[in-house]
Parts: sequence; structure tokens; C-alpha cells
Amino acid sequence: MVDGETRRIYEAARIGGPVALGTRPGVLVIDLQTGFTTPDGPVGSDLSEPVEATRHLLDVARANARPIVFTVIGFGAEAEAGVWGQKMPGLLELRAGGPWTELDPRLGARPDEPVIVKRGASALFGTGVASLFTAQRCDTVVVCGATTSGCVRASVVDLMQAGFPVLVAADCCGDRARGPHEANLFDMAAKYADVVPGIDAAEYLARAAGSASAGSPAHAP
Amino acid sequence: MVDGETRRIYEAARIGGPVALGTRPGVLVIDLQTGFTTPDGPVGSDLSEPVEATRHLLDVARANARPIVFTVIGFGAEAEAGVWGQKMPGLLELRAGGPWTELDPRLGARPDEPVIVKRGASALFGTGVASLFTAQRCDTVVVCGATTSGCVRASVVDLMQAGFPVLVAADCCGDRARGPHEANLFDMAAKYADVVPGIDAAEYLARAAGSASAGSPAHAP
Amino acid sequence: MVDGETRRIYEAARIGGPVALGTRPGVLVIDLQTGFTTPDGPVGSDLSEPVEATRHLLDVARANARPIVFTVIGFGAEAEAGVWGQKMPGLLELRAGGPWTELDPRLGARPDEPVIVKRGASALFGTGVASLFTAQRCDTVVVCGATTSGCVRASVVDLMQAGFPVLVAADCCGDRARGPHEANLFDMAAKYADVVPGIDAAEYLARAAGSASAGSPAHAP
Amino acid sequence: MVDGETRRIYEAARIGGPVALGTRPGVLVIDLQTGFTTPDGPVGSDLSEPVEATRHLLDVARANARPIVFTVIGFGAEAEAGVWGQKMPGLLELRAGGPWTELDPRLGARPDEPVIVKRGASALFGTGVASLFTAQRCDTVVVCGATTSGCVRASVVDLMQAGFPVLVAADCCGDRARGPHEANLFDMAAKYADVVPGIDAAEYLARAAGSASAGSPAHAP
Repeated sequence: MVDGETRRIYEAARIGGPVALGTRPGVLVIDLQTGFTTPDGPVGSDLSEPVEATRHLLDVARANARPIVFTVIGFGAEAEAGVWGQKMPGLLELRAGGPWTELDPRLGARPDEPVIVKRGASALFGTGVASLFTAQRCDTVVVCGATTSGCVRASVVDLMQAGFPVLVAADCCGDRARGPHEANLFDMAAKYADVVPGIDAAEYLARAAGSASAGSPAHAP
Repeated sequence: MVDGETRRIYEAARIGGPVALGTRPGVLVIDLQTGFTTPDGPVGSDLSEPVEATRHLLDVARANARPIVFTVIGFGAEAEAGVWGQKMPGLLELRAGGPWTELDPRLGARPDEPVIVKRGASALFGTGVASLFTAQRCDTVVVCGATTSGCVRASVVDLMQAGFPVLVAADCCGDRARGPHEANLFDMAAKYADVVPGIDAAEYLARAAGSASAGSPAHAP
Repeated sequence: MVDGETRRIYEAARIGGPVALGTRPGVLVIDLQTGFTTPDGPVGSDLSEPVEATRHLLDVARANARPIVFTVIGFGAEAEAGVWGQKMPGLLELRAGGPWTELDPRLGARPDEPVIVKRGASALFGTGVASLFTAQRCDTVVVCGATTSGCVRASVVDLMQAGFPVLVAADCCGDRARGPHEANLFDMAAKYADVVPGIDAAEYLARAAGSASAGSPAHAP
Repeated sequence: MVDGETRRIYEAARIGGPVALGTRPGVLVIDLQTGFTTPDGPVGSDLSEPVEATRHLLDVARANARPIVFTVIGFGAEAEAGVWGQKMPGLLELRAGGPWTELDPRLGARPDEPVIVKRGASALFGTGVASLFTAQRCDTVVVCGATTSGCVRASVVDLMQAGFPVLVAADCCGDRARGPHEANLFDMAAKYADVVPGIDAAEYLARAAGSASAGSPAHAP
């Protein structure tokens, strides 16, 4: 999908090296709420495939006690949508607490898995998501969600900037159109994260040596 | 460049509305440092055209007393490059204070125009850039710089999230390869900003009604 | 309350100059939720006086169409309380959506006034509060809320850092103990904000020349 | 220094619990630059005691390969000082690259220890400091620096909010006046961090079990 000339230029510029993953990964699942995952949703399309691939990855994460954080987009007062609501008026229908902000039930979210409401594209902008991973002592983040060309891309850039090595589970990410999906997987793999099949990301979650946790209060002096 | 199916899907989803620009714009010029603008630079290519288009836009901004902020990427200790330096090892040659972190001289930067050193992709992440625009009472930001598919895209997402309407001056943005340049202009125009020719952005800078400034200390009670 | 030696040292160091207020102020009301404003609340005390002073200020703000933003502390999953919940275990009872996270009804909050849930001390950390003020084109923020020595202080530091001149309405701020309340008003007035009586802050809201708004979409080229 | 009534109220409100420290600590040294540590500095006082206590702590950190990050305040263009420069005009003399922004030589800073220039009170606001600790896989931060009532307090609040347990090395922190120094140590110990003698913080740095590092690139699938 990406043209040969671009690949050649990037190779010459030494773009696309691998990242050093850590041993205590967490999982970030971005905006797999009904408003995005169902064709009826105001900004939705049929994301059944990435939702099911994400569910498989989450089952592995849960079996290995990896911290999981979900985000959903939801606006209370209309002012909260800001400039973004002008570019994408469909977003305004994602009312906080309304039906389109519920997580897709196929993900099997559990009560102790935080669901953070966000108002921007990045899961880290204007949220406590990075703090949650840090407080739970994660040193790496595996990313799933939607849309690849929007909130996933923005979140991956921010996670990298925040100091986390990032592993994007490619088939756990979905978008409404194929072109932007692929163009953004390419950009992320080139500059910000490693992009792998969900099955490989799940294997990493299962075998990473460390255990992320806030630890028992083994306390200082 | 973007396929018809994507355009059709985006139109049906009402993606790509115009933003309401304000009256007190500032200008953000991203990473037009020698390391990027010259083919010899460690992450560079020939960006003469966007540099010259940006210079024209800056001349208009200066004539109209619009606040200007430049960013450059520069690392002191190697640890500062973090994960990004793993994906793009060429970045490590952008040593703070070294030759590749100097602004392209064709921009004619003036001493009172802040040059902010950044270590991430976004001009706003881990910098005071948003604070600078707010303190100077800008309500809109015009964006120029490099690379379109990297730091420009990341900065535009952050500016939008920070509450600023954004106008991307398309031909004032440059990249090392055409495919990612165009794919990212498309994504930005669809979701985050208005994308216009530099000449139109300059006209907006000339005619916007307000005057951004920290004001005289007409003080409170 | 503050000792004479401290005052003398600060004066010699030229600490405590006035800030230049803008013309389009907004109002930030921090954590005046029942969990704080009533003695029964898990982290509460009787804050009737600051709540009533804030209500008066809000009435003036509403009459002059000044943007208002409320914050409340609320945690979903327990992990969200992080380190803070260790220092102040009473915070864990502020469950999102529960009774202690409701705004004090004496404030008369209206449906179009955003209520932002936060998980940190500062109203700006991990929230979209700064973005809300920017998107509504505010250039100054008037601050009320609780507690003076905790979330008010942290928020004022962040607002200043974000580029906003800040006016703290002293008697619209409350705390559970007098010593920290006064020590923190002193610190804020010295380094970060102007601190005035609520009645003066209200007068400023009434007479400031500009009108903050996201404007009609009078659009660019 | 803090009155008995405040202590009684805080105890009843269960304020001041201990934090659970991690095993891979880093050290943050805030603004121990000549402009602050020498009486001649524009915002300075004689901070020889905290500087020497910090040096002892740093020697232990270095012997145990703990990541160290320094910050200094420095402004390029005057606009960068924003509102803060209005409250404290002495700050404007801290010109980036000038004599007052150099680290106190008694700290023995090494070339591979990052020195981050900041423009706000908090060491985390508008900087990559949190990213540096995350990228080096620190899970706890020990804090030294100046001033206790200004940048130390603001940084400790932000570190806590960012998810890091914080240990403040009390005698490694300095201020120009005693009252605010003690009032802010009290506030920090109550709500945000554990506050201990520098010698205990050094002992913790020596014995914490883990080793923070970006790890060898033992790579993913």
C-alpha cells in the first residue's frame, strides 16, 4: 500500500528501528465503544473483527494479571467537544453516560478495569491514563482500538513521548476506511512503535518476565 | 492521492467540517532546523520550497505583529531521546546546541521570537508552547514546518486538543517523501484542522481583526 | 499569620508583583462537591461560607455570560486513586457517580456548565480544563473552591503555568483548617496569582471589556 | 511550627498516610542553580546546606546507578516568562545560557545526567522530566532542590499526579525563608509525599532492590 519510493527513502534515513520492550506491560484499549464499533453508531462502522481480536488479547492479559485501561469518548456539556466537534459533528452524539459511550460488550470489561472518559483524540491528552500505567508500574504498553488513523495514532505518539515503549496489535485496531488505516500503521511502525499481529502481542503479554503492580506497601525508612 | 472510497465513507460520516477561526492568531513553525531542511542533515531532505513559503508567511505575520514561536528538536544527554531515538536513530545526531539544531537561516528568525527546544514529536508535548500562545492571548494557530507526517501532524492534533482552532499552511509544510506528506494532510484536514495554501493563511494573518498581546497591565481591583 | 521576617525577605527579593488581567475571564470552581462542603463528607468540613460567596460570584458571572467550569474529584476503579489514595484514604470514598461527588446544590449549577471529573489535585492535571478555557477564548481565570491548601493551590500553579493570569477570590476558597488556608493564600499571592476579596473578583467579572466565546464560525479563506 | 488544631483536624480526617515506595528509584534535583543557591543570585539565598546534603545523596545515587535528572529555570525570549515574570520579576534575570542558570558546581553534575531547562514552577510542567523517569523505568522519585515553597512543592504535586510515589529529602530542600519552607514540608507530607531526612532517602537509594534502566533491547516477537 505504501509506495516503494517512500520505503526506499525511509530506509536510507534509518527510520523504523525496533523498540526495547520492557517486562511489565499494560494494555490500552482505545474507544471500542458502541458509537464506533457498530455501523449504526454516529461515528461507527462494523469493527467486529478488531473487537474480537482485542477480546482474545484481553483474555491473555487477564490470565497474566496485566493492567488494562479502557478509554471512551464522551461529552457532557456541548462546550467540551471544542474544535473537534466542528471538524467531526458526529462526535457530538457521543453523550457521556449515553448509549454510544458504552464499551462494546464483546470485550467483557470487568468492574476493576478503569474506563476513562476522554474528550480528545489521544487517550493521554487531558486524562490520567499515563498516570494509571505509571502508578501500576507498567513499563510498556500494548495498544488496541479505534480508529487507527485517529485516536490510536494520536495515543501511540503520546505514549512514546511519555517514555513508554509501545506495541501496536495491528489486527486489534480498526478504522472505517482501509486507506487511512494502512497509512497510519505505516507511520506508527516507522516512527513511534512496533506494529505486530495481535497474536504476537498476546504472546508477549504472556511471557514478559515482570509483574506490574503497585506493590505491597513495603515502606521506606 | 486519497482513494475515492475513503472520500465517500468520510463524507457519509460527516467528517471534515470547517473550524471557526479566531481573531488573534499566532504562528507555530515546527523543526525547520538545518538537520531537517538540508539534504545533508541526519534526518534531512531538501525543504527549500516549504522554507521559502514559510518565510513569506512569517514576513506577513511580522508586519502584522502576530506572535511567532519556533521549535527545534535537540537532545542533551542521550537518555533524552528515549524510545524515539530507537525508532529513528538519526535523531540522536540532533545535539542541543549543535549545528543541526539551528534554525534555517532563510527564515530570518529575530531575537524576540522564542525558539523552544523539544524532545518529542509534538511541539506541545513536554514544552511550554501552548502556554506561550495563551500568555500572548492568541486564540488561533497557523502551522508551518516539518515533517508533515511526523511533528506537524502530532502538533496539530495537540493544538486542537488544547482548544486552538488550527490553520495548516499546506505548502509551508515539508516532508522527505510525498506519500506520507499527502496522507497526513488528508488526515489533518479530515479531523483536526483546516488546510489551506500558505498564501491564504498569510492573508488571514493580515486581516484577522484582533491583536494578540499580553496587554498593558490594566489591573484588577 | 505570615511572619514579619518572611515578608521582609520576600519584599527584598521583589516577590509578589501584580498580574496583568485580561478582558475575557472565565471562572473555575474547584471541588465544591458535597464530599468537601459538608462536615459529614469523607474529606469534608463546613464550607457554607465559601460556597455562598462563590454562589454570589457565579451569579455575576452568569449575568455577564462568563464561561464557568466546575471540577469534582471522583474515582471509578480504585486504581484511579493512585498514590494520592495512600496519603488521603478518605478520598477513596469519592466514588464517581456517588453522592459525595455531587456539586453542592447551593451553587445552582446549570446544565450547560461543564462539570469535569478529576483524579488529581490540580484541576488541570489529567483533565481538559485548560482546553475548555482556551476553546471558549478566555484569557484570564477567576478561581474559587476547596481546599485552599490542596486543589486550589495546585490548580492556580497550573493555570499560571498554562499562561493564564489568575485572580483568586479569597473568601470563595475554603479549607478544613485555618493555618494551611492562610499559608497557601500567602504563597499564591506571592508567586502565582493575585488574591482579592470575592466581591472585587465579581466586580472584575462584571466590568471586563471583552466577551469570551467560541465565536460564530466566521470562517477563514 | 504547624499549630495543634491543624494537626488534630488532619488526623481526624485520616490525612498523611505513608506511600508505597517502589524498587527502581530515580532522583530529581530542582533548580539548584547559582541564581538560587547564592545570595547574590537574582532570586537567591545561601543554600549551602541543602546543596551539600544533596551532594551526599547524589553520591549514593551515583554509586548505585540511580537515574538523576536536574532542572534549571532559564528563559530565552522574554515572552517565555509569561505571568510568572510579572509576579516575580527577579526571574527574568535567569537568562537561558547565562551565569545564573548554571548548576551549583558543588553538585558535581556529570555529562550524562540530563539538565532540563524549565519555564514554570513544576519540574514536570512543559518539560520531558516525567518521560525521562518513565523511559528509564523508574517507579519512584526522590526529590531535592529549591525552593521548598515554590518549585519543589509544585513538582512533588505533579510527580504524585503522574503516578510516582515521592520521597522528599527534607534537608536537601532549601528556601529563602523558614516559614514557607516548613509550611510546605507540612503540606507535602500531609497530602502528596513522604518527607524524610536526606540520610534516610540515601539509604533507600542504596538498598532498593530493583535496577532502573531502559534495558537491553531484548525484543518482542
